[in-house]
Parts: sequence; structure tokens; C-alpha cells
Amino acid sequence: MGSTERIRNVAKRVAKWARAGHQMVVVPSAMSGETNRLLALAKELAPPKADDAFHRELDQLAATGEQASSALLAIALQAEGMAAVSYSGWQVAIKTNSAYTKARIESIDDARVRADLAAGKVVIITGFQGVDEAGNVTTLGRGGSDTSAVAVAAAMKAQECLIYTDVDGVYTTDPRVVPEARRLKTVSFEEMLEMASLGSKVLQIRSVEFAGKYKVPLRVLSSFTPWDIDIHEEAKSGTLISFEEDENMEQAVVSGIAFNRDEAKISLLGVPDTPGIAYQILGAVAQANIEVDMIIQNVSHEGKTDFSFTVHRNDFARATDLLKSDIATKLGARQVVGDAKICKVSIVGIGMRSHVGVASKMFRALSEEGINIQMISTSEIKTSVVIDEKYMELAVRALHKAFDLDQQPA
Amino acid sequence: MGSTERIRNVAKRVAKWARAGHQMVVVPSAMSGETNRLLALAKELAPPKADDAFHRELDQLAATGEQASSALLAIALQAEGMAAVSYSGWQVAIKTNSAYTKARIESIDDARVRADLAAGKVVIITGFQGVDEAGNVTTLGRGGSDTSAVAVAAAMKAQECLIYTDVDGVYTTDPRVVPEARRLKTVSFEEMLEMASLGSKVLQIRSVEFAGKYKVPLRVLSSFTPWDIDIHEEAKSGTLISFEEDENMEQAVVSGIAFNRDEAKISLLGVPDTPGIAYQILGAVAQANIEVDMIIQNVSHEGKTDFSFTVHRNDFARATDLLKSDIATKLGARQVVGDAKICKVSIVGIGMRSHVGVASKMFRALSEEGINIQMISTSEIKTSVVIDEKYMELAVRALHKAFDLDQQPA
Repeated sequence: MGSTERIRNVAKRVAKWARAGHQMVVVPSAMSGETNRLLALAKELAPPKADDAFHRELDQLAATGEQASSALLAIALQAEGMAAVSYSGWQVAIKTNSAYTKARIESIDDARVRADLAAGKVVIITGFQGVDEAGNVTTLGRGGSDTSAVAVAAAMKAQECLIYTDVDGVYTTDPRVVPEARRLKTVSFEEMLEMASLGSKVLQIRSVEFAGKYKVPLRVLSSFTPWDIDIHEEAKSGTLISFEEDENMEQAVVSGIAFNRDEAKISLLGVPDTPGIAYQILGAVAQANIEVDMIIQNVSHEGKTDFSFTVHRNDFARATDLLKSDIATKLGARQVVGDAKICKVSIVGIGMRSHVGVASKMFRALSEEGINIQMISTSEIKTSVVIDEKYMELAVRALHKAFDLDQQPA
Repeated sequence: MGSTERIRNVAKRVAKWARAGHQMVVVPSAMSGETNRLLALAKELAPPKADDAFHRELDQLAATGEQASSALLAIALQAEGMAAVSYSGWQVAIKTNSAYTKARIESIDDARVRADLAAGKVVIITGFQGVDEAGNVTTLGRGGSDTSAVAVAAAMKAQECLIYTDVDGVYTTDPRVVPEARRLKTVSFEEMLEMASLGSKVLQIRSVEFAGKYKVPLRVLSSFTPWDIDIHEEAKSGTLISFEEDENMEQAVVSGIAFNRDEAKISLLGVPDTPGIAYQILGAVAQANIEVDMIIQNVSHEGKTDFSFTVHRNDFARATDLLKSDIATKLGARQVVGDAKICKVSIVGIGMRSHVGVASKMFRALSEEGINIQMISTSEIKTSVVIDEKYMELAVRALHKAFDLDQQPA
């Protein structure tokens, strides 16, 4: 929420829903720029070493942003003639663990909220924050408002959790790369997880996981839609992330194309194919606090195999050094090679589970464009390839077309 | 507290005290301008009718200012190498009644704070706010940070409560009127109450009352003093508001001259001197929500008396109308007369209790300047006169000199 004008529009939209007979719980984010402003002040004053005590104060500070915006939204709703009340995380209470700045929600007490709803009030709950066992304020980390909303929806057993964002839904791929990209009316939870983790930054991945765990139907829709559009139209807008596999979903084999150019690949060539080799390599990498995404090991050849994985591009140099200086020698690997100029392109679709030939269709489409595939990794609902980064847009467009994603499914 | 620079200086000052062996509890106000900024946002969005639900949200909103400044001060202290933790009102907890925007503190639970102090931490507690029985955030009203500080000091049985303000203490009178005005090293609680209510806006009157109730020694000192001045010098700076009558206090008969030109006087002339007359007049005035300050009734003359009182100048027209249109007729008063161009000048001093002739010395000093006294009202430690407002500065200067207030007491 930006200006008071923006808050007023949110209030009008909520009032519209409430007047249509819905019991409404609203989880606002802070006013835009507010969290950054507060954290910048903290940064100016910060101690040299960021310990737990410091992170506790950061949370105590950052939580004020949502408390303020929630109170302002309650006031704006009252101005609309609605009974409204706002609660901070500790007032609900939203209980979390004590991992300051990245706390996890443990429980939500819904008694107070239910009583207010029954009394005809709109209830506003601060996003992004909670309270730990000892009564300290905690925050869930950036984007935590989405997670709070889903958690509250789960606790309240809400019919649907509407997430208003700055995009109007989930697309078959990034419309900036493929202008024909189409908004999906529904997407399965599993597909959304793959899309989110593969770089569609529509929703924070934790909020999707939370929704999956508690089977909360999530709708992603645009906060830029005028507040006074027809409520039935609004109720069908955006993209519904569903947990029920209806027929609609089965129709499209592939739902979307995800891509990511933040990765780099590293291979150890000619390592002995003995038990524990994967652990010996990746255990050392994990100890260096380097996160690994794709992992590929092919069948061995004369007792030797090649082991490859991808890491974030920022960790590429460090990971390569680690392998060259230490692990490769220990394991007797022939060579360490790597490349940061790659990208990962994936097709995602729950329909892939029951359709053969989806991967080969993908490979054919890429080959027709003369794009060489460097690595392949598959799961039940996703096939990812690593290719030269310069082909990324070309590959995404070719796949989008090959799977008819520009066409509305029949 | 203004900028981060200002917060850093507060942290250095607190660290200095803590390092000298003092257990420190700090109650900061919001960063300057912050409370006004938040309330301006609320005003933009406010409903037409300000009810309890609205005031609840105002408090939920306004309380964020102190929560943020408290966390920032904790961070700045950590940067100084001190262990520090900040608490909001509800975390301590500071329990109040439910009178939103003007709540009264009912109790303070000091267990958590004591444990932190024992563990060597500096404890920061948000001023201005608390939590009611039902877990709603409340605020104490403007200037409430002073009251919070005193309440916390009382609960913790603090040795002294230091109130850092934008003045460096309590003066014998306003130095803008009398350049020779002298800072008092100590002033009694009763004198301070009279000074505060008579217009010396050094401290919020409620905080002084609170200090009196719980016998908390209060020191008013300047926040503009460099943080690194000698701690013994700082400990003696400002003005100590004391609850013990030491010899020092007895020496000065009159401690200060207070004045106020915000009042107007109204008289009912020739009202019958019968029981209940005062109530009939002032009951009606009170019902019209007009606050009365001085009230004077002299002995009657032929069964008739004159009844006078002063009100705030803003209420003068309304009070006069009320008397003329209604009360005067009912009571059979001869005439209603009033004057808004008056001022009240008072001498205040706990020593007056045991010294005769103080009032007459006051009247002589005024008469020597040719100033006519219109009304007189006395209490044990104060004598107030109403005079023409044009003589205000002259009267204050004459009294300041007559009582040797420019001289350090022997």
C-alpha cells in the first residue's frame, strides 16, 4: 500500500467484498518504502557484528511498518462505514519460533478473530510478523506478508486466500520474453511451486508451500484492478492455485515455461564410480554453505563417471576453487570444468505425469532451433535443460510455441 | 530524538552512565515529527465520527513511533558495545485502562526488566503507551513519554528519574521576560506542580503528579548538553524536583514567579448571598464543558455578593453568553461584567507556608510600579493576582527583583 489514496482504495475493495456477505480478514503489507526506510535507519546505527540481540531489535523495528498500515486500513474502513479492527501479530496471536528476521509460523490462535467476524467486523492482521514463546516480536523475512495471509487463511479455514500483487496472475512464461504468453486461469500447487522456484517471482515460495501444506486455495490477482469492478468478475480474475485436480488441468500437458539465468554449472570429470562419491562432493560443497540446484550423474564408463551440478552464479568461483584445490585431488578426478554463461529452461506441467513424449517434444523443439542441450534433469512435472545463456529467449519462445501455450486450452 | 546522529548521541550518553555502574532503564520518545506524520495520515483517512473503535486504531498506529525509536536506540547501544534490549508497552507489560489516546497507567510488571538489568543489559521501554486488560494497545496522550518514564522509575524504585528536555531546568521565571531569571537547583514537588500548571511548560503536569504520588525524584535536564561531559557534572545539572524538604528549600521563601495570559475574568455582580449560589453558577458552567481556574467570592454586603472566576480566553465569549442569557436572570444578579485583557501573575514558594508577610510584600512591589490588582487568590504555597495584561512583564520583573530571585540563596 502506497499513499493514503491507495489505502482508501483497498478499503473500498474490502468493503465491497464484505457488503457482498463475505467475512473478511485482511493482511496488509507495510506502506511502500516504509520497511526499507526503517531498515536503512537501522543500518546507519548497526553494530559491527550482527548477533541475535541485533536481529531481535531489527524485528521490533521492522514490525512497526505493518502495524501502522493495518491501523490506517482499519481507519479507512471505518470511514467507509464498516466496523473494523486491526491486530498485530502478538495480539492474534501468531506464534512463531525465535529465528529473528526469518521466523516460521508455529500456530495461530483464531478465537479473537472469529469473535470479531461473528460480530460483523472486518479484521485486519499485520502481515510479516508474529511473536515467539517469550513474547519477542519476530518477522518472517521479506515477502512474509504473503505467508502470513496464507497462514491466517489456513487457520480460519478460509474459502479462498486472495493475494493482491503487482501482476495480474501467473503466466505461461514471462510476457517480456514471449509477448504471446497467456495468463493461466488455474495452476496446480505443484506447478506453482516449480514456477515460483524457477524464477516466476509472483509469490514468495514459502507462502506457496504453506498453502500446499494446509490446502488453502490461493488466488493471485492484481491490486491495480479498479476497486469497483463487478465482484463476480473480480472473483474469477487472476490465477487460482488449486489443490484439486479438476479436468481443466488435465487438458494442458505443459502449463508454463520457466527460466533462470542466475546459475552456473560445474563438472568433475572422470571421478571413480564408487559408493559415497556424491556425498563426498556435495557434502563439502554444502559445508562451504553453497546451495546446489540441479545434480546430474550419468552411468559410468570404465569405472569412471562425470558428476555435474549447478550453483548460483555468485557462488561459482568459490565452488570451483573448492573443487580444484581440494576435492578433485582427493577423489582422483581427471578435471574440473565449469561454465557461468548458462541458463536453465524448464517446462512445467502436472499433465506430464500421464503423457509420454513430452520431453522428447521439448528436445526436438530446441534442436530445430539449433540449440545444444548441455544438461538434462527431469522430475514428474518438470523437465529442465541447461543451455548456453545466449539462447535463452529463443528457447523459451520456441517451447512456448511448441506446446501451444499461446492458445487457450480447449 | 531526531536523526540517527541524535540517537547515536543518546546511546553514547546512556553508555556513559551504564559504564559508571548505573543500572539504566531508558524511555525514549518517538523520532521528532514521526507521531505527527502518522496522525496526519490517519486524519486524511478518518471517519466522520471519531468513536472508540477509531481511537483504538489511532493508538495502534501512534504507538509504532516509539517502538521504532526504542529499537533503534537499542541497536545504537549495541553498536556502542552495550548489551541492550527494547520493549513495547505490552511486552513489559505496562497495563493501562482502556481510555484510548489518554489512557492511565494502572500497573507495571517489572520482573522482565529486573532480570535484564541483573544480566547487565540496558533496558529500553517505549514511552507513551501501554496495553489494556483485553490486550489492546493504548497511548497516554501527548507528552506521555515523560509520564511513562516516571511510572517506570516508580515501579523500578529508581534512584532518580532523569528527564532530558529542550530546556536545561526550571527557572525562577521565564528568562525571556526576566533576563536575570535563575535556574533552580532544586524545587519541591508542590512548587513544581504550581509552576507547571501556571504555564512553565517544562514537564507534563501528569508526570509531575505521578512523581509526587510515588515519590520519584525527578531531574529535569537538557538534552543539548554534550553527551561526553563529566558524569558528576551532569548528575548535578538541571533542576531536581525533590520530595524531601531539606534546609536548602526553606531558605528561599519564594521559588519562582509564574504567569499566564491565557485567561479571562467574569463577574456576576449583586447576586443574592444564599446557600448553593456557587454551585448554581459553576455547575452550569461546568455542564457547558468550560473549565474554571480561579474562583473568588468575597463577603456579602446587604445580602448581596459579587462572584468572580477566570476561564480560558477561548471560552470567554461562550461563558459570558451563558451567564447573561440564563444564569444571571435566574439568580437575580444585577450585572455580568467580564474582561479578557487580563493576566494572572503568581508567586510560588513552599517557604510561604511558614513565613508571614510574603503576600503583602508582593502587593507592595506591584503598588510601587502603579499596578492595580483586580483579583487575589491564595493557597498555602502560592499567591496569585489578576492584573491588566499590559503590566504582565513589568509585574513579573518587579516581583522577581522584590524576592531577590536573581540572587543565589545563601
